Formats: sequence, structure tokens, C-alpha cells
Amino acid sequence: MAKRSIALLAGGVGAAKFLRGLVRIAEPHRITIIVNTGDDEQFYGLHVAPDLDTITYTLAGVVNRKNGWGRAGESFRALGELERFYGPAWFNLGDRDLATHLYRSERLHEGAALSEVTAEIAARFRIKARILPMSNERVHTHVKLKGRPALPFQEYFVRRRARGSVEAIELRGIEQARPAPGVLEALAGADAVIIAPSNPFVSIGPILGVRGVREALRAVRDRVVAISPIVGGRSVKGPADRMLRGMGHEVSARGVANFYRDCAGAFVLDEADRRQLEAVRRLGINAVATDTIMSSPARAAALAAAALAAVGNHA
Amino acid sequence: MAKRSIALLAGGVGAAKFLRGLVRIAEPHRITIIVNTGDDEQFYGLHVAPDLDTITYTLAGVVNRKNGWGRAGESFRALGELERFYGPAWFNLGDRDLATHLYRSERLHEGAALSEVTAEIAARFRIKARILPMSNERVHTHVKLKGRPALPFQEYFVRRRARGSVEAIELRGIEQARPAPGVLEALAGADAVIIAPSNPFVSIGPILGVRGVREALRAVRDRVVAISPIVGGRSVKGPADRMLRGMGHEVSARGVANFYRDCAGAFVLDEADRRQLEAVRRLGINAVATDTIMSSPARAAALAAAALAAVGNHA
Repeated sequence: MAKRSIALLAGGVGAAKFLRGLVRIAEPHRITIIVNTGDDEQFYGLHVAPDLDTITYTLAGVVNRKNGWGRAGESFRALGELERFYGPAWFNLGDRDLATHLYRSERLHEGAALSEVTAEIAARFRIKARILPMSNERVHTHVKLKGRPALPFQEYFVRRRARGSVEAIELRGIEQARPAPGVLEALAGADAVIIAPSNPFVSIGPILGVRGVREALRAVRDRVVAISPIVGGRSVKGPADRMLRGMGHEVSARGVANFYRDCAGAFVLDEADRRQLEAVRRLGINAVATDTIMSSPARAAALAAAALAAVGNHA
Repeated sequence: MAKRSIALLAGGVGAAKFLRGLVRIAEPHRITIIVNTGDDEQFYGLHVAPDLDTITYTLAGVVNRKNGWGRAGESFRALGELERFYGPAWFNLGDRDLATHLYRSERLHEGAALSEVTAEIAARFRIKARILPMSNERVHTHVKLKGRPALPFQEYFVRRRARGSVEAIELRGIEQARPAPGVLEALAGADAVIIAPSNPFVSIGPILGVRGVREALRAVRDRVVAISPIVGGRSVKGPADRMLRGMGHEVSARGVANFYRDCAGAFVLDEADRRQLEAVRRLGINAVATDTIMSSPARAAALAAAALAAVGNHA
């Protein structure tokens, strides 16, 4: 077990899968997870935080493994009735999941900060790792599709099933967003900072956009390692490849490495992209190749070990 | 079918049972139900209105018939998870039921009046009768037990299962409560006003306490008929008998009639209490005896017909 402290920049499902491995090789109480909240949305008057919940449910062992999000053994009775009032539902909120949103919403309404509520929820799920929202201020990611007005992220991602050519990502509210308490300290104090294999634009991008985060990473760049979510020119999951293409980036591991070059000193790409190692190294990044497909917690653990080794931390 | 318009002052379960009969002999769209909201409570940040929902679910045919409240075929998955955050639950909120509370709470939060939201919910359940909350202002019924501070009604009724000797009922906020739009008009314009066999203190009392309601009833007293919830010296259901006793009233149909004497010109008591007819008549009330035990909708319909007949309305 690595005794060192680790910070992870995380989106949802990909980051959660990675965490299932990371907690096998590092002590959970030494891990701080800084989570994207740009995807958060209000549904039925409730504050829903998909990435925070995916991370929380995964670490608690209550996630629906097939989907990678939501609760295992979930039912949708309330949602069926909500349709009576609101019309057809396009965002799945399960009955068990609702409890989390009710608690979060009531606490926020009482004036608690999202970081406090997130810690309370994690504690009730007996999670030892520290889960931080990137900010207590609201950032609302919008996706601009060709020939259309910008859509809130969940409408693009869930309702439209990520269809359409993405021209731009708008991070509304990002200028006002300050890092949540503990975020900058975790980055400055970590022996290793890992950027999870999440979508660079809509999962990691919002975190990097929060005031001071990019600077904090630059200050410890040689301890920062990013993992490519692009393998063989395609996203392992989700629309990252189409976003890279739509916004004029190279759709490759190298394209992702280039996106992170100012703040990540190391980069892990998949064996399938081994021939890009040199190109990434020419960006001034310590590139390594390994198996990045996390088809089991054991494989995720091996990937986590490789990422830590790339910044000089050995499990 | 009576073509005349009817107003019903209603609490929860007893009034709902009565309505199952009333809608058999009167046209639903000519019925206005004025419902107690003193029992309303906030749970998990949601505005729960037990009496409104019992009436609505009953008229929609989706009520749990065994309990008399809540939804049929209900599950409690969300509640089980809410206990993770809030500790053991003492108020049963089902998954289907939650949808109603979510909708109501969001609309109220948006600034809608409770009467608007109540009408919207009734419309979504295709209810033809008009359901009005007694007031759009918050009245919060508290129960003062011997030797204890006053408790919110649901804590007394559900959490403590109505145990303890009731010394007084406090209707907090009643001085500021104005009748909801349509309440006074319904009373003034009705061919018959029926006071349901609900608890006189905690179900009907709050409605009578709303500014102008008692006066409106007095003005049409000869068209107002109350139905006794006390049969053979005991409540058919609930703690009305103990409340009468605790607050120094006679625990009898006559005791209830006396409570309503200023605003009800007629009174229906049970055959079992036939010997009290004369005593009630001496209060200046047109008393009639019939079977008041509503063991079926048909029996409830017969009771409704008897009540209407007592104020000169014949089905």
C-alpha cells in the first residue's frame, strides 16, 4: 500500500472505475477526489450531482455495476408518478437515488455548502476517501452543437444521447467559481495528482477552469499524471472523441496529452497507442504505455500503479 | 343525482370515506371539498399535506383502501434510504406518494399558491370535484399533552400514535390565515354544506378557525349539516373521544353537536345514539339518526343522502 497522499481529478463513470483500482493499491484515507460538478442539474426541484454520486456510490459498493452509475437494485416508482405531473422523464432518478438528492437539496436549502453536504453523504456511506466537489459555486456546463443554441450538459448527454457535432463547451459560472475548501491544499500537498481517464472537456475541463486549479497543477506539474480516455483514436466510453474532432483537436492520445501539457508532467496511454509515445514525449511529457482498459478492478489497480510509477510513486 | 351544489368540510380518512358515498349520489363537479391543512408538515424538505392527499387519492381511486391513506401498491424504497441520512423514519412516505410531494413542493417554491397546486394535482388525477385547501397560509396544528410542551400534530398523531391526555389544541398561524380563494363563495353558494364525520378539533376545527369561515357557515346555518364522528360514546376512528374528554367536553354525539351548534342547523347521529336525538334538538338543531358506519361506499352513499335530506336536499 502506498503511504503517500494522492489527489484525483475525476468525472463520473471512468473515474469511478479507476478508483475501484486505486483503492486497492493506496490507502483510501490518503486519497482526495476532486469531482466535476459542471454536470449538476436541477430535476423536480432537487439538486442532482451525477459525478459526485457516481463516485460515492462506487466507493460505497452500492453502484449499479452494469450502468456504472445509479444504485444497484434500483426501482423507479417515484419517477413513474412524476411523469404524471411533468410528462415523460428523460433523466433516470431511482427511488433509492432520490434519497440522496432529497438530503442534498434540503441541506443546500438550509444554507450548507456543497462540500459539507458531500462529506456528510460520504460519511453516511462510510467512505474513507475524501470526496470534494470542485467548487461550492454553481458551474453549469453547456454544449454548443452545430446550428443550435447551447444545451445544458444533461440535455445533450442524456436526453439527446450525445448526438450532434459539438462546436464548443461553455462553462457558465466558471469565472465566479472558487475552489471548494481543501481543493488547492490537496493538489499542493499530494505526492501524486492523477487526472482520471475522464472526458477532458466536460469532466476534467470544468475542474481545470475553477480559479487557481490550473495554476496549482502547474506548480506541481512533475507530480501530475493524466490518463488517456482515448484508445486507438476512439473514446473508451462517451463522446470525448467526437468532441475532440468537433473542436478541431487531434482525435488521439497525443491530442489529449497536448490538452494537458501545461499541467501534467506525465501521461499514460494505452498499449494500442504505443507508437504515440515519442510524439507525446516531444510535448515535454513523460509518456508511458500500459493496458488502460479497466475491465476489472484488478486491471484498474494495475493502471493506477502504472500512473503512480510515472510520477515516481511506487506502490 | 342531486343537481344541487354541495360543500364539504373535510379532514382526512373519515371525510374520504364519506366522499366515496357522496359522489354516488351527487354530481362530482358540483362538489367543493374544503380541506384541513393544519396537519401539513415538512418532511425531508417536502411539503406534505396528508388530508389533501387522502381526499385526492381516494377520489382518484388510487388510495390504499386498507389504510385509508397513501397510495395503493406502494413501496418504500426511498424512505429506507432516507433513514441512512435522517435516522429511523416515523412518517411513512411511499415512493409513488413522493412524486406528489415533490411536485407540490417545487410549485410552492416557485411561488404558486397551495390552492393552485392542489387544483393542478387534482387535474392530473382527473378528479372532477373541486378540492380546496382551507387556506393558502400555513396553519400548524399543535397538540398540548398533559405535562408536556405542545407537539406538532403529526408528531402527536403518527409518531406518538395519539397517546397521551390532550389538554389543548393550538392552531398556530390561524389568526393570519385567510380562506383560500373560493372557500367563502362555495359556502355561501352551496345548497348544502356538510361537515364530514372528521375530528372536530384537529380536522374541522382548523377550517372553522380560518377567518370568515365560521361566520359564513352561520349565515347559511339552516343549510349546514354535521355528521357525528362519535358513536356509542367512542370515536369511530382516531382520538376524537379522548380529545373531547381531555378538553372537558361530553364524550357523545351530543357533545359534538354542541361544538357545532352555532354553525350547523342539522346533525346526523348514529342509530346507536338515537336516544340523544331529543337532547340535540334541545340545542336548536334538527337531529336525525341513521347508520353512520361507512363500511362500504353504498353505506356511505346512504349516509350522504340522509345528511342532505336533513337540510332539505333530496337525492
